[in-house]
Amino acid sequence: MSAVKRDTYTPQSLLAVAVQVFNERGYDGTSMEHLSKAAGISKSSIYHHVASKEDLLRRAVSRALDGLFGILDEEHARVGRAVERLEYVTRRMVEVLTAELPYVTLLLRVRGNTDTEQWAMERRREFDHQVAELFEAAVADGDLRADVEGRLATRLLFGMINSVVEWYRPEVRGADGPAVADAVVQLAFHGLRTDT
Amino acid sequence: MSAVKRDTYTPQSLLAVAVQVFNERGYDGTSMEHLSKAAGISKSSIYHHVASKEDLLRRAVSRALDGLFGILDEEHARVGRAVERLEYVTRRMVEVLTAELPYVTLLLRVRGNTDTEQWAMERRREFDHQVAELFEAAVADGDLRADVEGRLATRLLFGMINSVVEWYRPEVRGADGPAVADAVVQLAFHGLRTDT
Repeated sequence: MSAVKRDTYTPQSLLAVAVQVFNERGYDGTSMEHLSKAAGISKSSIYHHVASKEDLLRRAVSRALDGLFGILDEEHARVGRAVERLEYVTRRMVEVLTAELPYVTLLLRVRGNTDTEQWAMERRREFDHQVAELFEAAVADGDLRADVEGRLATRLLFGMINSVVEWYRPEVRGADGPAVADAVVQLAFHGLRTDT
Repeated sequence: MSAVKRDTYTPQSLLAVAVQVFNERGYDGTSMEHLSKAAGISKSSIYHHVASKEDLLRRAVSRALDGLFGILDEEHARVGRAVERLEYVTRRMVEVLTAELPYVTLLLRVRGNTDTEQWAMERRREFDHQVAELFEAAVADGDLRADVEGRLATRLLFGMINSVVEWYRPEVRGADGPAVADAVVQLAFHGLRTDT
């Protein structure tokens, strides 16, 4: 038995605990019992804050999605040459990903059949679609190479960006979020080679 | 009850079924009962072919690791300028990944506490380490940019390569393994931009 502590949670701090458990056990593999144990409060205390496990998931992936969609509203994502906007969005995606690591990790792993999971996957596709359109505009401007098919290229770009969740840990020195974002932009847009 | 069919499995065809179940349910979440149902043969028939669930895992990740380490023995990975060898290894990694998709997918997802999982993770680190050495040699030759820290750059390169397992499906036309491998090499080494 874990000790039951006094419930001093806010919705935000309870969400942080839940997201950690979801990422460790998987959303499907997490019960309210697991959440209760991890938070150290009773299930009924949890229900005081949120309606259900799915409600916690919705709040968590919303936080990640709000961060990502917020990028597209920023001035540098809306104004200017498409290639510059795409570089800006790429950089900011890595910054949001590293700043909101557990929430984005959960979003990227969502694959399921509940309404919330379906909705999250749909929103993620919509985001990817908007970035892909920016990509196509930059190709049309002649600023991005056209010899690699656009959908394949955006998938590889997203693959590089999203892979950061696999190893990025904010406590490790020498690679903070903005430094990782710089590296992603340099490699994705200019490549590894010196002679290109 | 699923129908029990006559056991016409070879170790290889039984392994293919097991890997699919491992990838769907996760290794920890898979029981011999699940494997028996998916294969349509009894548990004792499975034990006729393999010693244990962990034995199946070992065979599956060995197949992926043999494919990857085999690359490093190929002539173009051993002879020539480091940057050319690294490009060759990158291309071949994508080809092995797409050709052995379920096995490499399983290898990339292994995170566990059994001896076999620990061993697989250790072998994977050893492979990554050998590729990272090739990377450093190419930087030392002046062929790869030195402004992005080597460990970060190799992580991003591996991130792009490994992300292919998330969406690659051999049945989709227009992006076969070698075409995806070409795209990865072009983007990783030469970047998305036309002006670089």
